[in-house]
Amino acid sequence: MNINTQPLSGFMELLPGEQAEFDRLKNLIEQTYNLFGFTSLDTPLIERSEILLAKGSSELDTQIYFVNNGLYAKEPNSIALRFDLTVPLARYVAEHNESLTFPFRRCHIGKVYRGERAQRGRFREFYQCDIDIIGKNKLSVYYDAELPSVIYQVFKRLNIGAFKIKISNRKIFNGLFEQFNITAPFSEVLRIIDKALKVTTEELVEEFTGLGLDNSQIENLLKFMEVRGSVEDVISRLAALNIQNALFEEGLSELKIVIQTLELLGVEKDYYEIDLGIVRGLDYYTGTVYETVLQDSRIGSVCSGGRYDDLASHYTKEKHPGVGISIGLSRLFWQLKEFGLLQNINKTIAQVVIVPNDSTNLPTAISVAAYLRNHSIKTDLLLEDMPIKRKFAYIDKLNVPHAIVVKTVNDTEVLSLQHKESDGSIKKQELTKEEILKQIL
Amino acid sequence: MNINTQPLSGFMELLPGEQAEFDRLKNLIEQTYNLFGFTSLDTPLIERSEILLAKGSSELDTQIYFVNNGLYAKEPNSIALRFDLTVPLARYVAEHNESLTFPFRRCHIGKVYRGERAQRGRFREFYQCDIDIIGKNKLSVYYDAELPSVIYQVFKRLNIGAFKIKISNRKIFNGLFEQFNITAPFSEVLRIIDKALKVTTEELVEEFTGLGLDNSQIENLLKFMEVRGSVEDVISRLAALNIQNALFEEGLSELKIVIQTLELLGVEKDYYEIDLGIVRGLDYYTGTVYETVLQDSRIGSVCSGGRYDDLASHYTKEKHPGVGISIGLSRLFWQLKEFGLLQNINKTIAQVVIVPNDSTNLPTAISVAAYLRNHSIKTDLLLEDMPIKRKFAYIDKLNVPHAIVVKTVNDTEVLSLQHKESDGSIKKQELTKEEILKQIL
Repeated sequence: MNINTQPLSGFMELLPGEQAEFDRLKNLIEQTYNLFGFTSLDTPLIERSEILLAKGSSELDTQIYFVNNGLYAKEPNSIALRFDLTVPLARYVAEHNESLTFPFRRCHIGKVYRGERAQRGRFREFYQCDIDIIGKNKLSVYYDAELPSVIYQVFKRLNIGAFKIKISNRKIFNGLFEQFNITAPFSEVLRIIDKALKVTTEELVEEFTGLGLDNSQIENLLKFMEVRGSVEDVISRLAALNIQNALFEEGLSELKIVIQTLELLGVEKDYYEIDLGIVRGLDYYTGTVYETVLQDSRIGSVCSGGRYDDLASHYTKEKHPGVGISIGLSRLFWQLKEFGLLQNINKTIAQVVIVPNDSTNLPTAISVAAYLRNHSIKTDLLLEDMPIKRKFAYIDKLNVPHAIVVKTVNDTEVLSLQHKESDGSIKKQELTKEEILKQIL
Repeated sequence: MNINTQPLSGFMELLPGEQAEFDRLKNLIEQTYNLFGFTSLDTPLIERSEILLAKGSSELDTQIYFVNNGLYAKEPNSIALRFDLTVPLARYVAEHNESLTFPFRRCHIGKVYRGERAQRGRFREFYQCDIDIIGKNKLSVYYDAELPSVIYQVFKRLNIGAFKIKISNRKIFNGLFEQFNITAPFSEVLRIIDKALKVTTEELVEEFTGLGLDNSQIENLLKFMEVRGSVEDVISRLAALNIQNALFEEGLSELKIVIQTLELLGVEKDYYEIDLGIVRGLDYYTGTVYETVLQDSRIGSVCSGGRYDDLASHYTKEKHPGVGISIGLSRLFWQLKEFGLLQNINKTIAQVVIVPNDSTNLPTAISVAAYLRNHSIKTDLLLEDMPIKRKFAYIDKLNVPHAIVVKTVNDTEVLSLQHKESDGSIKKQELTKEEILKQIL
């Protein structure tokens, strides 16, 4: 009896009402992905370790959950739980290359595992909600524009607050660095650029000098950093910098196409902007990058992604460029819960619960349940014989929108529909089952 | 490059069209469960090993997939993947007892892991689709009747062929054994009863004698085995046996209530029967038991379950009787696929694909896609520039119901809606986007 029944540390476990809300958000994300033609995949949670480790050493390697079973006794740790959904996609594309139609739009919502240090709101088992479009040999930049339109629809529908999709292109930075011969580490330069709004120009210059940049390099960087404003402004000011570098020009041209296409796709202007700085931390990507932030600063970034040159280079000789995004749903849900931003927390999925007053009312209660279920109403039914007070406690605890009490009044059975009004008062009506169906629908 | 990209042996991996059909069946099962007020749970896939092993040695113990990670280095094999959804439910109920409302209706559709010997159609990672109703201290037998009505709705909606729900009650057998002092192993006696239709009465008697049964015991068993027929016949013939044993009578009375309530619940008579013999192999259960079989004998049993006295006795002192069923969806799906019984195998989830004839038609193609998506049509969009022949190959390979080709005819852009008729011919119409929307809806 001394067994610990708590879920493992770092593993989210929800109560029924929270779970219903989590599932509502998850289904909404998947349905929106499907709307854009992304077809759902569901690959095994366990992969060969060599697949997961193929990319070479990274922080993720130390976090892998290895799996062992008598079947693999000769090769301990030869299989493991996936740490993301991108590696399984790469393996899937390599394996099923001949059966897939490219460009291949896939959506995958599933759990992944990372043995990270325990932290509030960081999980070791968590849901990722990914979409990717994978090409064969090439992939048009127009696809880069479709993804922000998916993000836009997803967060509009989730209805969890104002958000902004930030867009940039890594080639712009890479071209700039190439053009001005900046050899200092990319991430270090970006770290300083990130501080720009918080420190004086003198302090900035000092920091850049510390990285070994010369005056001309610093001057060019400062000029570049002044590029801000509306999407049109940013694009015209980038062009006006007149940087004659092929990579820079390619990045700028791609950024232009993405912005123009967003308008055709009907994405409202308020919901996106160009933020050149977001390339930081998105090392994996090679072209367009995205980062979506909620205006509620306690939450911040909720979705990121971008364009990559070759998805499956570790598993196949075929070249597969792609573009994708990922939403970390478990963390987002935890934050919404933590900050009191969740709506609709009932204790059950049912729309109505039926309660017989006593055992003579049981047959009618059962047949009314069958009637409502046949009309697609999610119906709970209390069949346990218990004191009426506890029956009302059952209705109350479930916090369900409607309750029907079946009782006998003057030798006649009646259905009493009870509905909690927005002011907390209970409205009771005696109705037929047909009238009740109409009210609930 | 020599990495094996095949999924692990015993792990199902589906192509997009198959996956869409799998998901359709899975969602249909979950929606039907929800219709009966079962609220969905989603517990961690990893449990403490002591939780999984608490029940004591069984075949399942040797099949456990243990999980290891640096975080648990001091205690190797201390955590593991679940092998069913019942143990996690028991732990969940023990842990969250105070927060739950009993009787608690929960539904759980999730993957479980068993390191079984590899066999065609047997999986090491597979989906179980479970529902259970859990009481606190007691649980009315009326709940036992609700579950077959769920099974009935599920398999009607899945529409995968004729089926029969077989119902029995273990107390009837237990009472019989008690009454006639039969001490031979339950499973051995049942094994012989199972053969009844295939062998002569003399051979039966011989086998029973071999188990040490005396003449009077054998005579009573043979009388019992003659009980067959319609549900009414079985019940009246069981009563006519006039067995004065409390357990037997309890079982018979429960069986009566279940059968009567099924009628109130609107379950058609053709879809269920009493089959006393199904208690075999369902050792875990203590009262009502169910087994559902498809008429297609290549498939056979697709769903089983029953009543149990105490769900969580290994984890809590509280007593939780329950009743539940489980559908093994991965195996069922594999069988449907194997026997050619799957419908609707497209290559994508999209309802329509839009293809611009050349790059000048790109803007219109994009805005028509945005229009259809805004009207909830799942829309794929081909943005890659490729020869027109390959564009048609793309449409063809996706096997999507509708395609729209955007092209310029006499300086005017037109939308050509192409729809494959049931005879395989392609019907083409030039339409406005509004007309197309109407046709697809």
